[in-house]
Amino acid sequence: MPSVAGVIIGNEILSGKFADENGPHLIARARAVGADLRRLVTIADDRDVIAAEVRACSQSFDHVITSGGVGPTHDDVTLESVAMAFGLPIVRHPELQALLQSYDLTNPHAMRMAEVPQGTSLHRSDPTRFPVLQCRNVWILPGVPKLFRAKLEIVLTHLHGRAVHARRLYTREPESQIAERLERVQRAFPAVEIGSYPRYGEGPAFVIVTLESRDPAAVALAASSLTACLVVFQPPDGPIE
Amino acid sequence: MPSVAGVIIGNEILSGKFADENGPHLIARARAVGADLRRLVTIADDRDVIAAEVRACSQSFDHVITSGGVGPTHDDVTLESVAMAFGLPIVRHPELQALLQSYDLTNPHAMRMAEVPQGTSLHRSDPTRFPVLQCRNVWILPGVPKLFRAKLEIVLTHLHGRAVHARRLYTREPESQIAERLERVQRAFPAVEIGSYPRYGEGPAFVIVTLESRDPAAVALAASSLTACLVVFQPPDGPIE
Repeated sequence: MPSVAGVIIGNEILSGKFADENGPHLIARARAVGADLRRLVTIADDRDVIAAEVRACSQSFDHVITSGGVGPTHDDVTLESVAMAFGLPIVRHPELQALLQSYDLTNPHAMRMAEVPQGTSLHRSDPTRFPVLQCRNVWILPGVPKLFRAKLEIVLTHLHGRAVHARRLYTREPESQIAERLERVQRAFPAVEIGSYPRYGEGPAFVIVTLESRDPAAVALAASSLTACLVVFQPPDGPIE
Repeated sequence: MPSVAGVIIGNEILSGKFADENGPHLIARARAVGADLRRLVTIADDRDVIAAEVRACSQSFDHVITSGGVGPTHDDVTLESVAMAFGLPIVRHPELQALLQSYDLTNPHAMRMAEVPQGTSLHRSDPTRFPVLQCRNVWILPGVPKLFRAKLEIVLTHLHGRAVHARRLYTREPESQIAERLERVQRAFPAVEIGSYPRYGEGPAFVIVTLESRDPAAVALAASSLTACLVVFQPPDGPIE
């Protein structure tokens, strides 16, 4: 099961100028293909901060996916920062240079998009489009949501795992009362991740108990054990959150 | 201007079981009160990971706000992890113990909510409610969205700054063409943060140019400079994203 960290780069997200669409999309797609997203961090357009985060994530996880900071403007510093993270020089990539020239993008600002950390490899599904850049285990994606989504699909073909199987149970017993029972079932089924999430809505409070595992039989058995020892109820109209 | 880092703790967010509501809410509220959110990270319910992140953020930023992991169940490990971050012992807080007893929550699992890092201070607006916990510069908030939102308001009274003033301009000139002009204006107005964000929608592509500063006069001057050197257009029906 490959582990993944997502690094969203952009002052515009932290300042609230734009809502982050790429983080939630990465979560959803990682879940769908069975990749194990373990960290998702939003940081500023700052070379030192990006380099430190990329270096740490690259050491701790199998794959790192960055979003943002790869365009031609002054605040696009991701490529330099990834190079800094690994102590690599920046080089002009001949294939990227040719591609930008084919788009008639030849001014020095546009050409920054062809300047990548040494050893960067290119992945593409369509030779007329800008490729996905990979430097070691870091996949460098653009922040524009439409482009991020398209390029993420190329990355995901490299990190498929086994899909997650999930169940939810609902109880009106308070969390502090059921904690001991949850812990007992958790110990009996270490392959299942059991979580509990209280919700206080319009009606009476309740707790959502979740079960997840890549082993569907273990989820079914753990759910039976919990159903036997908790007072569960059926949510009236499908799942409630 | 106080700097702030947000630490969202929860496997349930990373695995996509629940959408993160607290991160976006923190971004919006920090912006509204003029606090400078510099980092927002979502991490797993893992003591070592939480302790390392809290320690690093505590050193780098004026305030750290955590979300999640403070309930009575086995996966609630935030309080222990904050104690680990600072090498502090966990102690039972007499006021919290009395409060839990007043709720008739006296079993050992519930009592975990009274076990906090030594030196934790309590902030409350209503003596019958569970207070906000502060350990050094770390504010420890619950992950349940309704409770997080209520308690964040108490935290925010401690970190007001100056509101951000913002303008947006829209141009159909491509980003690679305007990069040099943006950079020139950025250099002339260092107090203004200028960003550019291409958008590819149904119609022709365009670029959103944003200007932000805590100095409203600087925003107005920089916007005039940009309007004089870019071919801007008026979005037809209010702002487009």
